[in-house]
Amino acid sequence: MSTPKIVFVTGNANKLREVTMILGGDSSPFTLVNEPLDLEEVQGADLEQIALAKLQQAVSALGVGKPVFVEDTALCFDEFNGLPGAYIKWFVKSMGLEKIVKMLDNFQNKGAYAITTIAYADSKGQFHIFQGKTHGTIVSSNGPTDFGWDSIFQPDEGHNNETYALMAKEDKNKISQRGRAFAQLKEYLYNTGA
Amino acid sequence: MSTPKIVFVTGNANKLREVTMILGGDSSPFTLVNEPLDLEEVQGADLEQIALAKLQQAVSALGVGKPVFVEDTALCFDEFNGLPGAYIKWFVKSMGLEKIVKMLDNFQNKGAYAITTIAYADSKGQFHIFQGKTHGTIVSSNGPTDFGWDSIFQPDEGHNNETYALMAKEDKNKISQRGRAFAQLKEYLYNTGA
Repeated sequence: MSTPKIVFVTGNANKLREVTMILGGDSSPFTLVNEPLDLEEVQGADLEQIALAKLQQAVSALGVGKPVFVEDTALCFDEFNGLPGAYIKWFVKSMGLEKIVKMLDNFQNKGAYAITTIAYADSKGQFHIFQGKTHGTIVSSNGPTDFGWDSIFQPDEGHNNETYALMAKEDKNKISQRGRAFAQLKEYLYNTGA
Repeated sequence: MSTPKIVFVTGNANKLREVTMILGGDSSPFTLVNEPLDLEEVQGADLEQIALAKLQQAVSALGVGKPVFVEDTALCFDEFNGLPGAYIKWFVKSMGLEKIVKMLDNFQNKGAYAITTIAYADSKGQFHIFQGKTHGTIVSSNGPTDFGWDSIFQPDEGHNNETYALMAKEDKNKISQRGRAFAQLKEYLYNTGA
């Protein structure tokens, strides 16, 4: 018997790989199916609201009854009271990592929270939210720059001042905001089914 | 005969006052009606797209046939390649003006464009876009701080290094991005009717 399908809406190949790994890879009792739907993201300080609005669109596009989740990852500077937050992807895209670090030059506190919010619609069309959070420091880019802002974020729980970009994937996933959020989703799915 | 009504969707009393003044005040052949609808704003680099998505919601809420417009004002730092842009309101709200200025401390170029985008739906349900743009410099807050980021924006076309906040309203409206955008809407309405 084939395993139940769960749709992950993302256009980001790196996220897809990471989430597949966190959810158990080939040994998972679920098959992760990618749909790169073009979902609008609303503005707003509330991360849950942003994720739920995206999920609503995904459910409308795919039809109720298909388990589906979306995720949104925010990078929140302590000094900026939570910003850039969900807008970090636009900052990475428009300014690049070097200038993002430079924005903080004259602030003493370089602390930042990374938060991943997952909004999941189960096969009955019920919505669930899972969130993971990891604190760290914004540092000059160190490591490969091919995955968002991973090379400028040094988690407090890491070792040897390594940024996410320098860490082994297994180590990163144990302490990362995305790892933590998806561990909750995984537990939910394993206990409850899709 | 009463003048035709045009709905302006905003919850910002200062914007409403300013736009009423720009469109001709009591001598206008139109009556400006305020509706503080709660419209979602999508994320995205494209200012027209953000305004059109808001307008679409306003038309859905009010019904086709009622002339209505929305506006969105972005503040785009030259060094940030257009950001914070449409997100500037969240930065003002979350960080405050002092920290916004401080973000630019280590950048030599303090230049910024202010852009107002108006999306207007006429009585036939046709959409129109008007945009106004003003270049200036980000400076330490100078003047009243009760209207967004007006006290940290010093327009190139101003006098005596005055920020928007220090200028007489009539002078500001002549050179401001909002004045320019609404001058186009006004001309359109005067020539074509609502």
